[in-house]
Amino acid sequence: MTTVSAYSLRELAQQLDLELIGDPAAIVTGIATLEKAIPGQLSFFHNPLYHSQLLTTHASAVILSREYAAVCPVACLVATNPYLAYAKASILFSPVPPERAGSHASAQVHATTRIANTAILEANVVVGVNTFIGENVRVGANSVIGSGCYLADDTKLYPNVTFYDDVKIGKRGIVHSGSVIGSDGFGFAFDGTRYHKIAQLGGVTLGDDVEIGAGTSIDRGALDDTVVEDGVKIDNQVQIAHNVRVGANTVVCGCSAIAGSSTIGKNCIIAGGVGVINHVTICDGVTVTAMSLVNQSITKPGVYSSGTGLSESASWKKNIVRFRQLDELWKRLLRLEKSK
Amino acid sequence: MTTVSAYSLRELAQQLDLELIGDPAAIVTGIATLEKAIPGQLSFFHNPLYHSQLLTTHASAVILSREYAAVCPVACLVATNPYLAYAKASILFSPVPPERAGSHASAQVHATTRIANTAILEANVVVGVNTFIGENVRVGANSVIGSGCYLADDTKLYPNVTFYDDVKIGKRGIVHSGSVIGSDGFGFAFDGTRYHKIAQLGGVTLGDDVEIGAGTSIDRGALDDTVVEDGVKIDNQVQIAHNVRVGANTVVCGCSAIAGSSTIGKNCIIAGGVGVINHVTICDGVTVTAMSLVNQSITKPGVYSSGTGLSESASWKKNIVRFRQLDELWKRLLRLEKSK
Amino acid sequence: MTTVSAYSLRELAQQLDLELIGDPAAIVTGIATLEKAIPGQLSFFHNPLYHSQLLTTHASAVILSREYAAVCPVACLVATNPYLAYAKASILFSPVPPERAGSHASAQVHATTRIANTAILEANVVVGVNTFIGENVRVGANSVIGSGCYLADDTKLYPNVTFYDDVKIGKRGIVHSGSVIGSDGFGFAFDGTRYHKIAQLGGVTLGDDVEIGAGTSIDRGALDDTVVEDGVKIDNQVQIAHNVRVGANTVVCGCSAIAGSSTIGKNCIIAGGVGVINHVTICDGVTVTAMSLVNQSITKPGVYSSGTGLSESASWKKNIVRFRQLDELWKRLLRLEKSK
Repeated sequence: MTTVSAYSLRELAQQLDLELIGDPAAIVTGIATLEKAIPGQLSFFHNPLYHSQLLTTHASAVILSREYAAVCPVACLVATNPYLAYAKASILFSPVPPERAGSHASAQVHATTRIANTAILEANVVVGVNTFIGENVRVGANSVIGSGCYLADDTKLYPNVTFYDDVKIGKRGIVHSGSVIGSDGFGFAFDGTRYHKIAQLGGVTLGDDVEIGAGTSIDRGALDDTVVEDGVKIDNQVQIAHNVRVGANTVVCGCSAIAGSSTIGKNCIIAGGVGVINHVTICDGVTVTAMSLVNQSITKPGVYSSGTGLSESASWKKNIVRFRQLDELWKRLLRLEKSK
Repeated sequence: MTTVSAYSLRELAQQLDLELIGDPAAIVTGIATLEKAIPGQLSFFHNPLYHSQLLTTHASAVILSREYAAVCPVACLVATNPYLAYAKASILFSPVPPERAGSHASAQVHATTRIANTAILEANVVVGVNTFIGENVRVGANSVIGSGCYLADDTKLYPNVTFYDDVKIGKRGIVHSGSVIGSDGFGFAFDGTRYHKIAQLGGVTLGDDVEIGAGTSIDRGALDDTVVEDGVKIDNQVQIAHNVRVGANTVVCGCSAIAGSSTIGKNCIIAGGVGVINHVTICDGVTVTAMSLVNQSITKPGVYSSGTGLSESASWKKNIVRFRQLDELWKRLLRLEKSK
Repeated sequence: MTTVSAYSLRELAQQLDLELIGDPAAIVTGIATLEKAIPGQLSFFHNPLYHSQLLTTHASAVILSREYAAVCPVACLVATNPYLAYAKASILFSPVPPERAGSHASAQVHATTRIANTAILEANVVVGVNTFIGENVRVGANSVIGSGCYLADDTKLYPNVTFYDDVKIGKRGIVHSGSVIGSDGFGFAFDGTRYHKIAQLGGVTLGDDVEIGAGTSIDRGALDDTVVEDGVKIDNQVQIAHNVRVGANTVVCGCSAIAGSSTIGKNCIIAGGVGVINHVTICDGVTVTAMSLVNQSITKPGVYSSGTGLSESASWKKNIVRFRQLDELWKRLLRLEKSK
């Protein structure tokens, strides 16, 4: 944590491909909000709500769009999309872990598993049979990787991650702690008295540039694989059931759950706490708002919701009584209309 | 993962107790859907929606009910309940882990703990004081088992499972990765200013044939045990609070939460994302649909729901305004009726 | 688990600062409910629902308020707040872990990290660079603590906990298994085609007397810290997103989720399964009932709810059709009123 990244504004402008207005030799060593930035730090401005903070910032330089350059009191890095430029700048200021490549002495790796020279297995990592771990992969301490897995180059698993057997993840993947990939799908056959387990014989395939949040679970398929396509971003505490397919560049926010064999299209946004029942299909370009239940397929791009919105409980209690009488209410209204 | 299970159709018919129509010497080495199966694979047909796939399947044999045997283009295994027969067949094709019994050298087991000879403790497993681990139990890598626990015969814990002290699990249990059994119930006493912890002195008792999904938590009881009866199947990311009782052969789907001291009957189906408030009782034979809130006891078997169903957000926004006026709307309707 | 805590009633009365009515030399060795207590056990009475159990209890002594002392058939410990006195008594009967201070031989600690002499690191714990671990801290087996962390005195982490870098927790903290503190906030910038990760450069600051349940995740801030103030109690499977602030002595029940940059006031009760959308503020003293969605800021203390309440599915299905027509229904009612 003693590592400090220092860049001149000239270097930043070059690396981020932005126009610089100001002293190219000035040095910044960190990034902060407009309000909290101190001299020597970079900031960014993309939300008009914070306009007054731009005018009084103590940052040494601000990433912003051209129209605000004139009012900025300090050096400017001019960007077409300042938020995107901030994202790229933030990566430059990420701390770099100090450890060198190689496996910690306590890591347990089966003899049949191939691990690239540049990969890092931290302490107490356990890896099964016939798994492949690519270049610059890092597996966090106390993580367990099963057999027949494939971790492509530049993928990072944080500590305490579990991959069951037959899990594949593409390049530049990120998997946060506590996540479980490849656990058994929830499949049983009922004999009239009790449930018999259906062995879950498929695996999980995650594409390139996939990020999986903390405490998220993705079940293996019953026969075919559960699939998460390239560029999908999944937040914390999400549940992806067996044989789900999540389309490319879709975002699934925290605590959402996708039930078995459902398909989410590409470029969708599934907000937090959303449920999707099993065997439905959501087309490309759909947004579902927070805590909605998708209980049918969606065939038209757009924004979808369920729920009632928040009320004070006293009035809410009266209204939910009326909700249970809605059909009756409607019919009585129809009678009134007819009787006129 | 190089293990291949190969069975002649004669063997399958015998082991599954099914009638064979076709060449008893034909060999199958895997199981797949009707659509994806290739020669040498077994498939199954139980959902009339896939009838056309049955007619064109490349599987070597299909499990089906008698009425479809005539139209099946390949060998048939005739079953009264084809889905149940598929479940049993799937187990035959499960990969068999290669490791032998015994504890990995890195496992840390207290001297007072008894472990059956046929049990397997994988790498970095830690076990506390006075715990008992039965025959053919397998504890996955990096799992931690507390003191005073009991793991009955043939139970399997996947990697990174945590059992606190005083957790008992019956025979043939399955616990998936990331699950935590026996964590403290959420109990506090408020003194008017701040909360004082109530020590959670009970344990957790799980019956025989219980399966617990990935990332699920089951809290220990405050004084008595939290209890999950025989044959209960719990999916991923479920929360079972202290002193809950879940009745035999009940299914709890992903992301559901049962609050403290509530009782779920036998043979219930709690769908995904359901919440059950504290201190309620649900009788036997109840189904609760996805993302419903059970905010009162249920005394009659049947199907129960809450929520509004999905709408496009534009119309939904108008309707939730009206929801907040429902009681007023009802009263105005009554006035209209009276004024006629 | 063979440890038995034994107290005379005199000792209990002194330690809990309660008035004793009964034999001060009588010994109790455990605590149980009125119904289940056997001679030699302590019980408590605070809920009038259990009045008949008080009259027939076999406990050796009961904690209760003065008004019930006359009807209590056994010794009494008289308390102003019997539930609070029970909480304090329960701590006295908690099992005491037998292990001594120090790090297990298998723990991996970076040379720069300082660990108090009285702290305990259990088996396979991994600790990063420049972390500080205070007096009487206990870190459970297979937990991983990152770099730059600070664990204040008397804090306890159960097994399989993960702290990323830059996580601070105050005194007397409790963190249950499977929890992940400091994982990346869910921040991306969209370039019109795909998402670019925003490095999450803040940390997490947890106050004194904070308890975090099993399987809960708290993300690090984007630039500033995510903050949980003193005395906050968070249950299992809760998701706290980046840059959230949770005010002192607030309770967040199981499976709730607070989205990014939202602020919860002090002394709030967030019931189970609640969602709070991003960038909202909830004032002090708010209660939100189970499975409600807070989709706007709350500026007035009180109780808030959303949802419809539970119905039998058959009638519910009719009513949700009408819910989608609510705005139309309302307009037709207005027309009727006008036409009178």
